[in-house]
Amino acid sequence: MVENAILLAAVSLLSACQQIYFALHVGKTRLQCKITAPAVTGSPQFERIFRAQQNSVEFYPVFLITLWLAGWYFSQVFAAGLGLVYLFGRHKYFWGYSEAAEKRVFGFQLSLGTLALLILLSGLGIASHFLNE
Amino acid sequence: MVENAILLAAVSLLSACQQIYFALHVGKTRLQCKITAPAVTGSPQFERIFRAQQNSVEFYPVFLITLWLAGWYFSQVFAAGLGLVYLFGRHKYFWGYSEAAEKRVFGFQLSLGTLALLILLSGLGIASHFLNE
Amino acid sequence: MVENAILLAAVSLLSACQQIYFALHVGKTRLQCKITAPAVTGSPQFERIFRAQQNSVEFYPVFLITLWLAGWYFSQVFAAGLGLVYLFGRHKYFWGYSEAAEKRVFGFQLSLGTLALLILLSGLGIASHFLNE
Repeated sequence: MVENAILLAAVSLLSACQQIYFALHVGKTRLQCKITAPAVTGSPQFERIFRAQQNSVEFYPVFLITLWLAGWYFSQVFAAGLGLVYLFGRHKYFWGYSEAAEKRVFGFQLSLGTLALLILLSGLGIASHFLNE
Repeated sequence: MVENAILLAAVSLLSACQQIYFALHVGKTRLQCKITAPAVTGSPQFERIFRAQQNSVEFYPVFLITLWLAGWYFSQVFAAGLGLVYLFGRHKYFWGYSEAAEKRVFGFQLSLGTLALLILLSGLGIASHFLNE
Repeated sequence: MVENAILLAAVSLLSACQQIYFALHVGKTRLQCKITAPAVTGSPQFERIFRAQQNSVEFYPVFLITLWLAGWYFSQVFAAGLGLVYLFGRHKYFWGYSEAAEKRVFGFQLSLGTLALLILLSGLGIASHFLNE
């Protein structure tokens, strides 16, 4: 299994780095905006960055499980490719949101659309395995 | 492994759809209550829906890992069945909470109890594998 | 695969228990500080505990995926050992933060450093599998 999932593993590792990168950037913005922990409000700039990261956190387990399901049951190459598109969408979302709330839309739609595709592929793959049994 | 986990995969896919459904409903309520991003306060209705989703997000990775551990090390059929009960509990919790804070209790207890069972089965399965080695 | 991942499974189960323990403690502090759901502000003590748990939630999927990647592609024993150090770091972080915001630093740095090591081992393992193909 380990050999057959190397692309999924590489994309997962990249996504883990992205999550940590977002979190560290929130910490940096906290210092810059002088928001003392545990507060998470008080500066529009910090609040945007914080919501951008929180939203990415919310979707992260959904992304991971659908990436692996699509990769295992449909096609590893397709799933890994969509995974990279998702990470790019999240990148655009995070940096767009950090500038202005309106600029979050494109990245959000791209990442959500990619997630919908991963779910569709997972569903097709799982259904085809059910039918084969 | 892929063949032996088809029920876990199906329940995981369903749970991913539920997470996205909760998130989209929060977005819809945000528009209805006219809460401008990145704010997450200002309307009791939105705050309840938002907390209901956040709580489901918090427990989601715990649910996924215990679902798969219980399925791999104890019994796939039991784990998948408990997984469906958990999703039902989360459904009751989310819609109960969206009506009134008190109505969240039944769904929360059902989902937490199911999670405790998944942890127990995982523990039994892992302990039995340790002893067999 | 199931046999070869027993240590990863045991550490994952322990981490799931820790997450639930943190969540239950937040609920208990909510009652003690008389913060009525869905509010999450109003008492410095509750806000610290809540942020401590939220931060642990944010990093939890990142921890799980890097634990399993490092275990699968590098070494299960190393990954499981680092996993235990991570859980200890999170324990120190949570209880430190619950006392005072400054006391969260040591546990946070320990858990983040361990996560960085898990990512490094995962990267080395995945790269070595790529090169062998």
